[in-house]
Amino acid sequence: MVNYPAGMGRSHTADTEVSSRKTSAGRRGMELENDINRTNEWYLNEDTAVIHKKPTPITIVKVDYPDRSAAKITEAYFKVPSTTDYNGIYKGKYLDFEAKECKTNTSFPIKSIHPHQIKHLDAVTRHGAIAFVIVRFVNLSETFYVIASDMTEYIRTCGRSSIPHDWFMEHGTLIPFSYNKPVDYLKIVDQLYFKENQ
Amino acid sequence: MVNYPAGMGRSHTADTEVSSRKTSAGRRGMELENDINRTNEWYLNEDTAVIHKKPTPITIVKVDYPDRSAAKITEAYFKVPSTTDYNGIYKGKYLDFEAKECKTNTSFPIKSIHPHQIKHLDAVTRHGAIAFVIVRFVNLSETFYVIASDMTEYIRTCGRSSIPHDWFMEHGTLIPFSYNKPVDYLKIVDQLYFKENQ
Repeated sequence: MVNYPAGMGRSHTADTEVSSRKTSAGRRGMELENDINRTNEWYLNEDTAVIHKKPTPITIVKVDYPDRSAAKITEAYFKVPSTTDYNGIYKGKYLDFEAKECKTNTSFPIKSIHPHQIKHLDAVTRHGAIAFVIVRFVNLSETFYVIASDMTEYIRTCGRSSIPHDWFMEHGTLIPFSYNKPVDYLKIVDQLYFKENQ
Repeated sequence: MVNYPAGMGRSHTADTEVSSRKTSAGRRGMELENDINRTNEWYLNEDTAVIHKKPTPITIVKVDYPDRSAAKITEAYFKVPSTTDYNGIYKGKYLDFEAKECKTNTSFPIKSIHPHQIKHLDAVTRHGAIAFVIVRFVNLSETFYVIASDMTEYIRTCGRSSIPHDWFMEHGTLIPFSYNKPVDYLKIVDQLYFKENQ
């Protein structure tokens, strides 16, 4: 059974947003990122948590200096990330996660997550982090929170190239949506790690 | 009095490295970064801590796709960082720091640290982070660990544009150097936060 956060029925997160979640080709893959950035900004302004997206890692090859105040990068390349995209601090704990959109409805392709990122999630988990992966099934309008070690263990042992949607229904938790906090993942963190405070 | 880590006399860190620390103009400002990256790699390989430098934040304006596998960024600009350069996890704690080289011997210019970074260091401190600033006086071959809140409080109240070298001697701790860990800052973190484990 999928876990619904308190007070959030499936109809709320899944059905009512289908139409508003349709994306143009250009924005594809960016919507989840934008939603998470907006949520993080809200957390920051409320002083609930300090969590940022890391800049995209690039290799800079050539920089022009038309004048000192506006150096212009004229040749650079994207690098394979060695860590996850997001980290920060919440209630004194180190928090670390990766976020991925999934365009198919039946399963999540494992190759979407780099081996470096899996290794990184395992490492921070070993050191005591709250580590997780956010996976959005775009067409289903479902955004899941999955504990990192559950997912990396499955990836290591499943012998498959993708994780079935059913697995997320069983092991994941749907993340509640609100206008100010479109991906309110700290609600799930509270349920999993700070129950005594609620 | 400056605090020396156990077993490290000043002559070791200060005198013997002067000649080897001379940098060409091209590498200036990068040496501390390289030393910290090497140290972090060592910590990672030992599985002592997971601490990474964040990529340089840039705004990408134009990308060419000569073929799918090697997208080429042809126009991008450096952005003012909104956080510090380094963060990660050590002994279950969130760790966050900024690192700066200083070319003058008498004082550290406060404008080297962006107001956003000061705000960020205060925020993560408030949430329970181990937060600090590493300042290297390049010509003196001295690399100081300074507790972030000590430095940000001084900056807010000093009414000056720079922090005298004497202040670092009084409030900072010299970071020990070794070949494998050129900036072994976790030694200082242990002394300050994990004394019972030593």
